[in-house]
Amino acid sequence: MAEENYDSRKIDGRSLARKVEEQVEKGIDQLQAEEGIVPGLATILVGADPASKMYVRLKHKACERVGIHAEDHEMPEYTTQEQLMQRIWELNEREDIHGILLQLPLPECLDEKAAMLAIDPAKDADGFHPYNMGKLLIGEEGLVPCTPKGVIRALEEYDVEVQGKHAVIVGHSNVVGKPMAAMLVNRNATVSVCHVYTDDLKKYTLDADILVVGTGVKHLIKADMVKEGAVIFDVGITEENGKVYGDVDYDNVVKKASLITPVPGGVGPMTIAILMEHVLMAARNFAETH
Amino acid sequence: MAEENYDSRKIDGRSLARKVEEQVEKGIDQLQAEEGIVPGLATILVGADPASKMYVRLKHKACERVGIHAEDHEMPEYTTQEQLMQRIWELNEREDIHGILLQLPLPECLDEKAAMLAIDPAKDADGFHPYNMGKLLIGEEGLVPCTPKGVIRALEEYDVEVQGKHAVIVGHSNVVGKPMAAMLVNRNATVSVCHVYTDDLKKYTLDADILVVGTGVKHLIKADMVKEGAVIFDVGITEENGKVYGDVDYDNVVKKASLITPVPGGVGPMTIAILMEHVLMAARNFAETH
Repeated sequence: MAEENYDSRKIDGRSLARKVEEQVEKGIDQLQAEEGIVPGLATILVGADPASKMYVRLKHKACERVGIHAEDHEMPEYTTQEQLMQRIWELNEREDIHGILLQLPLPECLDEKAAMLAIDPAKDADGFHPYNMGKLLIGEEGLVPCTPKGVIRALEEYDVEVQGKHAVIVGHSNVVGKPMAAMLVNRNATVSVCHVYTDDLKKYTLDADILVVGTGVKHLIKADMVKEGAVIFDVGITEENGKVYGDVDYDNVVKKASLITPVPGGVGPMTIAILMEHVLMAARNFAETH
Repeated sequence: MAEENYDSRKIDGRSLARKVEEQVEKGIDQLQAEEGIVPGLATILVGADPASKMYVRLKHKACERVGIHAEDHEMPEYTTQEQLMQRIWELNEREDIHGILLQLPLPECLDEKAAMLAIDPAKDADGFHPYNMGKLLIGEEGLVPCTPKGVIRALEEYDVEVQGKHAVIVGHSNVVGKPMAAMLVNRNATVSVCHVYTDDLKKYTLDADILVVGTGVKHLIKADMVKEGAVIFDVGITEENGKVYGDVDYDNVVKKASLITPVPGGVGPMTIAILMEHVLMAARNFAETH
């Protein structure tokens, strides 16, 4: 018997990201033509963590593709809190920088929370500032965390109905699970948030019309844990011997899903495309208020 | 057969509130002794809505009981946005006022959102400012909405385990449902948020270990919709012919619940007690930072 081909069920994050980036590019051209403004993003990287360096590089490459002016603020490992805050305050003041991205994690001796609070919420490209998180919770989504926003964008692009559907989120991090839950509640899904303390995870995942998994546990979600026809987003990443794995056992789960993101090539590229969109959004807001 | 008595299952909001208020009173005495500070609350009431007037009066009475200096800022129906903002800015500046409560709803011609945003987050006694909502979402609960916080306090007082339990919330308002969900997720419950768009509500409520209902639909929750032994909080209020009804059909549901709040006399008094606690918290924070 010929092996069935499930390619049409794969959510192609790379081509979705390209589409979003093309829209951003057009928006940037328009903003430049009408207001004479080129959106600017400053990334701050403290220390020399190789993974962080790679993430920053990917973001700069995306800026180059869409036409965002990008600045790479690399600060040494032994940077003081004072120096970091000073840099953030300077970037807050600059009129040519509309987005500030503080690459996490910071070296341990620095106060991550204080640094993030120092970023002007209007320039908070990552959407992690409490002010932006609170606006998200009350349904006024502006600059919001990029990864869950990428999931929302994919749901829109694939015309997946959200209202009234049961969305199950596995993982309750501040970066993915909690903002994802808020976004789906805002869109009138019935939302269940599961995590490491959940009793009988399968009971919830089996009932999910939309399943978003972000735990960092390799292949946590097996085929017998998902409903036939579910739409599945895999936000997890585990590295093992140079290979990257998601939280979902893709090869088997794809046989039951109606749509599913692979790892890599799923939500990752979308996250960066949304970041580009946020810098444009921040630059537009700047143009409107100055 | 004698009718069974279910009184021991009733969560007595009034006596819980008294307990919280007694703790607040002690805290106020201590703050005054150590720092010479009397906590101050300013309520702002625009217009003459009778229900709003009653709510403000209840809050002032509670302030009197616990020893909070309370000011009643009544503004006429035809107050301009400018005048309202001016009043808020003045109260933000005053060192003897630690909490500001803008009684909602405002007359329609006023911009509620702009007014609430103008309140200094450090004086936001109601916990509705996006900055405080965002801190709540990321698990740093300070000044948070009082009603869901009252539910949390009741869970603590009655030693109800939350971690790993299935908490189901019916209603996704900014005032109750969404902050309630965040607080329960922060305490590692598995949380499901249901609302008017939920398909088959009973499926969720029947599975709830902890059920919080805030919809304003009289007796929405019947006995056949809850699990034996569930802990149930009724946040709904419907007035009909001068009588007040909750969202839960108490007389029948109490036969299955292990603990349940009545309406009235349940979460209502707790909400006001938590407000008192918040004013004390804000005054303490003020003392620490000045």
